[in-house]
Amino acid sequence: MPMTEHTVTSYEDELKLIVRRISEMGGMAERMVEQSVAALMRSDWGLAQSVVADDMQLDDAQRALDERAIMTIAKRQPMAVDLREIVGAIRISNDLERIGDLAKNIAKRVIAVHDHAHPVQLVRGIEHLSEMALEQLKEVLDAYGERDYERALAMRENDEQIDAMYTSIFRELLTYMMEDPRNITSCTHLLFSAKNIERIGDHATNIAETVYYIQTGKQPANERPKGDTTATMTQPVPNDPPTQADEG
Amino acid sequence: MPMTEHTVTSYEDELKLIVRRISEMGGMAERMVEQSVAALMRSDWGLAQSVVADDMQLDDAQRALDERAIMTIAKRQPMAVDLREIVGAIRISNDLERIGDLAKNIAKRVIAVHDHAHPVQLVRGIEHLSEMALEQLKEVLDAYGERDYERALAMRENDEQIDAMYTSIFRELLTYMMEDPRNITSCTHLLFSAKNIERIGDHATNIAETVYYIQTGKQPANERPKGDTTATMTQPVPNDPPTQADEG
Repeated sequence: MPMTEHTVTSYEDELKLIVRRISEMGGMAERMVEQSVAALMRSDWGLAQSVVADDMQLDDAQRALDERAIMTIAKRQPMAVDLREIVGAIRISNDLERIGDLAKNIAKRVIAVHDHAHPVQLVRGIEHLSEMALEQLKEVLDAYGERDYERALAMRENDEQIDAMYTSIFRELLTYMMEDPRNITSCTHLLFSAKNIERIGDHATNIAETVYYIQTGKQPANERPKGDTTATMTQPVPNDPPTQADEG
Repeated sequence: MPMTEHTVTSYEDELKLIVRRISEMGGMAERMVEQSVAALMRSDWGLAQSVVADDMQLDDAQRALDERAIMTIAKRQPMAVDLREIVGAIRISNDLERIGDLAKNIAKRVIAVHDHAHPVQLVRGIEHLSEMALEQLKEVLDAYGERDYERALAMRENDEQIDAMYTSIFRELLTYMMEDPRNITSCTHLLFSAKNIERIGDHATNIAETVYYIQTGKQPANERPKGDTTATMTQPVPNDPPTQADEG
């Protein structure tokens, strides 16, 4: 049956190409995250601008992948796991594109944070947060490459650590703002940057769930603790009355 | 050819059901946005909790729609505009789910903002911002219902107004924080809430672009001004030296 064989080979080739594109997009997203945080910490405006430029490329890559994937579904009419491979690729490229957006948002804040000396502890904290998010991203892209859904699911646990670290940075920034009003504008931008990094971790977790979906056809049980815990936080440092806000 | 007719009718029925589900999800997302902002402004914790509960329902609806749409592609193998209808529905339900997430995030901040009297001007500003975002959402869902892509594209212009309003609220919040450090914690939560509302406007714009894609098979020219302009803002009130941050 050369016809069938030809069709199968052709589908396999298209899938391989799609998977390769995802891997390229993943590498691009990783680099953008790395560089945006480096630009923020070193006030490197040139590097920040290159991240903004990269984001347009990543957007284009996502759009191209989307179109290619849809064409593959329409032409090849894949079923079961083959269909999930394509649908999964669409979802992952969507998450990668959003990670790129978040990196771009961080890069755009460089000018606002520029020339403002921040305490070493704070800078270290944000760098550490971004290292954890990057680690998550790398791990989940590897798990996707190896179709290792157990590894992908195990990774979800680390998202809690990112949330805890984010919460600690959130507290620290509020305290710092209260100490000196001149810190407020710049700390506000760092607050948004930290939040963006925390969300990059969420997208890595989404990708982990897509890896699970591709292999099993199911969504993982919704057990993971999602989002940050700062939303209900009414005071930055509970045992420090002089600086705490007087809320109920 | 009764077979063909039956097949066509069946696809039409499935599409109709998918479109109806999108409309239900849209109504749910609108209500969540409305109620989350009302809860924030009135410190209504009970209402906030109901928004958080609604979000789980919206997540389930999105997952169910996703599965149904994928099954329809696999079973019916639609082409051209029929395929774009299904792909478009997947994208729109994704945006609606994220709007629900943003509303939930606002609702979760109610407890942190609770019992803190905010200036009337600020409260009005946030209410106005949310009204504009809701208006965008309603307009684009109508445009989707009527497959009116010109109306959808025209709507994108309003996103600039939302961004301008957000920028003005951002400035106001920074000024207010600088006036009294006790405002900082609560204003930080309002800052994130305003940012969430601004992003709801972005998702409405995404939906407008999907409506255009369904009808034309193309992405609209990327002319729209995207995102907020506060990222590069280094001082809240340019002509008010006593309170401005001393950044370069």
